[in-house]
Amino acid sequence: MDRALDLHADVVDLARALCDVPSESGDERALADLVEDALRGLRHLRVDRDGDAVVARTNLGRARRVVVAGHLDTVPIADNLPTRLEDGVLWGRGTVDMKGGVAVQLALAAELTSPAHDLTWVFYDHEEVAADLNGLGRLVRTHPDWVRGDFAVLCEPTAGGLEGGCNGTLRVDVVLHGVAAHSARAWAGKNAVHAAGEVLRRLEAYEPATVEVDGLAYRESLNATLISGGTAPNVIPDRCVVTVNYRFAPDKSLDEAEAHVRALLDGFEVNRTDGADGARPGLDDPIAQEFAAAVLAVTGGAPSAKYGWTDVARFSSLGVPAVNFGPGDPLLAHKVDERCPVDQLRLCRDALRAWLA
Amino acid sequence: MDRALDLHADVVDLARALCDVPSESGDERALADLVEDALRGLRHLRVDRDGDAVVARTNLGRARRVVVAGHLDTVPIADNLPTRLEDGVLWGRGTVDMKGGVAVQLALAAELTSPAHDLTWVFYDHEEVAADLNGLGRLVRTHPDWVRGDFAVLCEPTAGGLEGGCNGTLRVDVVLHGVAAHSARAWAGKNAVHAAGEVLRRLEAYEPATVEVDGLAYRESLNATLISGGTAPNVIPDRCVVTVNYRFAPDKSLDEAEAHVRALLDGFEVNRTDGADGARPGLDDPIAQEFAAAVLAVTGGAPSAKYGWTDVARFSSLGVPAVNFGPGDPLLAHKVDERCPVDQLRLCRDALRAWLA
Repeated sequence: MDRALDLHADVVDLARALCDVPSESGDERALADLVEDALRGLRHLRVDRDGDAVVARTNLGRARRVVVAGHLDTVPIADNLPTRLEDGVLWGRGTVDMKGGVAVQLALAAELTSPAHDLTWVFYDHEEVAADLNGLGRLVRTHPDWVRGDFAVLCEPTAGGLEGGCNGTLRVDVVLHGVAAHSARAWAGKNAVHAAGEVLRRLEAYEPATVEVDGLAYRESLNATLISGGTAPNVIPDRCVVTVNYRFAPDKSLDEAEAHVRALLDGFEVNRTDGADGARPGLDDPIAQEFAAAVLAVTGGAPSAKYGWTDVARFSSLGVPAVNFGPGDPLLAHKVDERCPVDQLRLCRDALRAWLA
Repeated sequence: MDRALDLHADVVDLARALCDVPSESGDERALADLVEDALRGLRHLRVDRDGDAVVARTNLGRARRVVVAGHLDTVPIADNLPTRLEDGVLWGRGTVDMKGGVAVQLALAAELTSPAHDLTWVFYDHEEVAADLNGLGRLVRTHPDWVRGDFAVLCEPTAGGLEGGCNGTLRVDVVLHGVAAHSARAWAGKNAVHAAGEVLRRLEAYEPATVEVDGLAYRESLNATLISGGTAPNVIPDRCVVTVNYRFAPDKSLDEAEAHVRALLDGFEVNRTDGADGARPGLDDPIAQEFAAAVLAVTGGAPSAKYGWTDVARFSSLGVPAVNFGPGDPLLAHKVDERCPVDQLRLCRDALRAWLA
């Protein structure tokens, strides 16, 4: 039996306690139980649970509601637990992605009994695996009232910077067809791998755009990420598949992004296999501007665009402007040497508190 | 227990009997035993055996020695045995590749007790699998005296045509290197699959030569036969490998062929993974011209080049000129509907007999 979480402990101790309860995707229950139990001990919150997602809300009749969300699961442990604290840096699985952020959420959920806005604290499961399992997606589908608000903050790692919205992502397979033949009589066949050369040439020559949306610059990218063709070293390939991933700015819908890729690859068979709309940063919204001003007064810096796709797009699909803001360097997420400076945990907590209190 | 082979039976009956004793590569013993037993019954031949290869020779003190070779093994049976004879066509595994040719060999081995040249009949194992297992290659290494001669005929299927020499084959891997990165931050990486585009472009633009060697036209080909790159749909690929197969005319050595490919793919990492020299047709040799004249007087037609690599190159490595000549359409080899017109069996036997008798 794990010990109960002490939400009033120092945020660093809380982060360590969270990391030291393993919660790989699909195995979040023990941690969700601890989080639920700790939140149920707080009188000022109403607590709901769905599967291994826990939602805690104030109901103070404030004019606006702010949602602060984070996921409880991690990618698999890589012999990097239990955590260790060395020279002001907390090492271990989850310290960046994203139990550091969850610790900030839980500390403030306990502390802010009378916040400026009504608050909804969302802790969810299955973020690190296939999108259809995503716990926040499930809440949006089955309990949209639990997660609705006027503004949302996702505490994914941004190294304490404020990152608005996110790029969308589109995946297509480009399929080249040929005719098989023995490679000693190649003229009897048609080489599908050679045909992929033109696809790769266009992708290589393509100059990805940087698109300004609501004042933030979204840098796009368009890449072949996988290629596979041929059946044997002495057979002319009759099929080759190039998987292409387009990360597109949130000024475009997924369908517009697909049309863009189809135009570039005109003349080739293009099949969409996966995709998700991006999210506009929403920083032109007054509440977002207020949030940005309050947070940046503590952290310094300026808002920037989020290039990767994140769950802020799920809030966006509900019409809720959302930003990413959390401790930890995102480039260390999923790494064996995942680690977070404890100062970032405190800075993020202080910045959020400054606005929410 | 299989019945003994009757080498004096009609060549079609003999071909059927051979096909109906399964002998997939590695499982040739039962058939090799039958062949050895039948040959040992012939007083005019000296019979040797090595593994599942059987060699039978006349020793009549003739001025020249002709080697006639064929392999006993087949690719796996595909529910296409036992043989059936329909409207003058013999259906079943091995009818083309190459028990039809072996039947011609065995019939003539028994019939020609006093041939014009000394004769060496070679029957060998493991032709349809990895080159290092090849039974003829083993004989060349371990008993070169058994298989030496002034001229060799390999009874591989040529549909009764006379095919001289063979193209060589070279396989290289072209390895492209990149730097992995998340595909949402592609600019932090370097795309190894995009880099393969230039390799494919050069291969596609390449115009393969047709090279005349000893009066025969060898058509070359140069192809990417396999391509593989990338690790995940959301990661910039750090490695891509293109397997290239060059079928080159026998005017070049393997090393010259490699230099040709390296020049074409200058600037890329090229690693040789496999290769074999081709074989010149040797049709300028007087004995070869005599053979061609005698055979073509029966079959009609003209000599042509062999595009695929065959075991004639093993004779070539011993300095023995060699040609391919046998019943069965080579395009039907290894097919489920493998089949051979019985007229071709008789025609090939008659043509060889005309020269050897």
